[in-house]
Amino acid sequence: MSARAEERFIASYLASLAEGFPGAFGLTDDCAEIAPLPGHAFVVKTDPVVEGVHFFADDAPEDLAWKALAVNVSDLAAKGARPVAYLMALTLPAQPEPKWMERFAAGLRQAQDAFGCVLIGGDTDCRPGPLSIAISVFGEVPAGRMVPRGGAVIGDHIYVSGALGGAALGLQLRLDPGRAAAWRLADGDRNQALQRYLRPEPKIGLRSSLQTYARTSMDISDGLLKDLDRMCRLTDVGANLELAALPLAGGVGAVLAADQSLGVQLITAGDDYEVLATVPPESAANFELTARRGGVSVRRIGHVVADAGTRLFDQSGTQIKLGPTGYDHFDVK
Amino acid sequence: MSARAEERFIASYLASLAEGFPGAFGLTDDCAEIAPLPGHAFVVKTDPVVEGVHFFADDAPEDLAWKALAVNVSDLAAKGARPVAYLMALTLPAQPEPKWMERFAAGLRQAQDAFGCVLIGGDTDCRPGPLSIAISVFGEVPAGRMVPRGGAVIGDHIYVSGALGGAALGLQLRLDPGRAAAWRLADGDRNQALQRYLRPEPKIGLRSSLQTYARTSMDISDGLLKDLDRMCRLTDVGANLELAALPLAGGVGAVLAADQSLGVQLITAGDDYEVLATVPPESAANFELTARRGGVSVRRIGHVVADAGTRLFDQSGTQIKLGPTGYDHFDVK
Repeated sequence: MSARAEERFIASYLASLAEGFPGAFGLTDDCAEIAPLPGHAFVVKTDPVVEGVHFFADDAPEDLAWKALAVNVSDLAAKGARPVAYLMALTLPAQPEPKWMERFAAGLRQAQDAFGCVLIGGDTDCRPGPLSIAISVFGEVPAGRMVPRGGAVIGDHIYVSGALGGAALGLQLRLDPGRAAAWRLADGDRNQALQRYLRPEPKIGLRSSLQTYARTSMDISDGLLKDLDRMCRLTDVGANLELAALPLAGGVGAVLAADQSLGVQLITAGDDYEVLATVPPESAANFELTARRGGVSVRRIGHVVADAGTRLFDQSGTQIKLGPTGYDHFDVK
Repeated sequence: MSARAEERFIASYLASLAEGFPGAFGLTDDCAEIAPLPGHAFVVKTDPVVEGVHFFADDAPEDLAWKALAVNVSDLAAKGARPVAYLMALTLPAQPEPKWMERFAAGLRQAQDAFGCVLIGGDTDCRPGPLSIAISVFGEVPAGRMVPRGGAVIGDHIYVSGALGGAALGLQLRLDPGRAAAWRLADGDRNQALQRYLRPEPKIGLRSSLQTYARTSMDISDGLLKDLDRMCRLTDVGANLELAALPLAGGVGAVLAADQSLGVQLITAGDDYEVLATVPPESAANFELTARRGGVSVRRIGHVVADAGTRLFDQSGTQIKLGPTGYDHFDVK
């Protein structure tokens, strides 16, 4: 593609996503200029999604685009930051068909409008290998007020937003649609699970409650237990969780009832992009109230304890045995 | 790799690169917090480098790391920005050997110390496919003062920093070492060319001169003619260049003397990461002076004209015929 063709490509599919942001220079410059509001700072993050790891080659381009932005915005949401802008490095195995690019850009448009941010720059390249979308996001917080991952204190309540297990169930159904019948899933639950895998919903409505009341927060990308363990280890504490308290995505309860081990696997498998937070007990009521006002359901699922490690208990108080849990970035063979 | 092993990986190889930057949280958080100085803004940019496109699989890991950061910092330098920080998404075909990672981290250390920035966050993933290093950089400018690509005015002097053609010559020698003898290159020139391909040097010393005196600026990543054409088209102008005025990297002059067509190909092939700027004639002397004070040589190579397109003239005033020039991101077959 010549320089002019490359410019036409950007102008045709991407430039409109930068409208209204002067520092993006209409995507005609190598760089963008961006500043936070006075007294504010940026929370920044990059998390690429790659074909064969985070999505399938034949997923709808609208969905890839949504997911690529959503997984990054999810981190901002967990930090109490307001999404502002993003850079995108798009690495393609071949020059895309116009129709594919139109649909991809339409998915980005839906996602950025939903999350309140704009594309301000990036890069497009072709090379042999899997499709990769590397987005870097910029969110805004009052300076020094990014909600940290580390700092959990013994006695803190542990909260999770939304519902767990839906993305992993969706992935299972994507890999083997026949399992929906085997698990006797209702059509609504099956469709919701598939949707949760394809279109995670960052919990941007939690901004105010996290900023004001949470001690620590992170998003769950690699699985509840693995991510909670990471959080707790930063202050040498542990966590006790109650299985019955965990909020379950549609269909996950049915699987759990039929096969507890498989159900727990779904719940802890990751990709749900919910928010995991610890809140001092005295702030719990206000945290729940402001979360509800922000349109996000949160559920207290356990509390922080002195014993290292994360334990899950059933309704009888018996500890559930856990295998290796969570998605590992390095598990590719 | 388990969560703990992944944390050890980050702690062992990368965390020391974030030292001294509180908002990086020692790379233990998903996100980083960063703010420009009061009255300043960030210039931001992402440009991934990928095995098989920007480097070879068997290049030294120190060199890959240097190049991955340098190509991004080069953009900041061209915008008159002071490098501050970067995010890195490292996508590996397999879990790296400890020795490889140590050397890669050592290369990052050399580069970030040379450019004055620190690692503040990122992501590490394994998946089948080529090694990819996607860095996003943050540079600081007085608010509203990023030097733009667009805005060249008829009569502006066109400047280029450093020397051209070295990276392309280095690539040719990398692909076919025997050509050094065929072109009768001195050992020093051969080694310098190989080095210029592996270790581009962003022209961060140009910051003050660009901010104060340049009308437009960009870095040359895709080749002098292609990038200059992009710059000029933003204000519907063109450029006349003099071949004899172009500053040539060591060895390129010898190739040019032996074969003008091949020499011009080297000079315009890209990857040199020099700065290309237009400067109003009345500011030219000050631009040159402040550049020299910043330790960067700049050369006036032509001027902006009304006629669209870029033309290159030899010493007799004859226009040199140019084929398709510059590196195209979409040219992979």
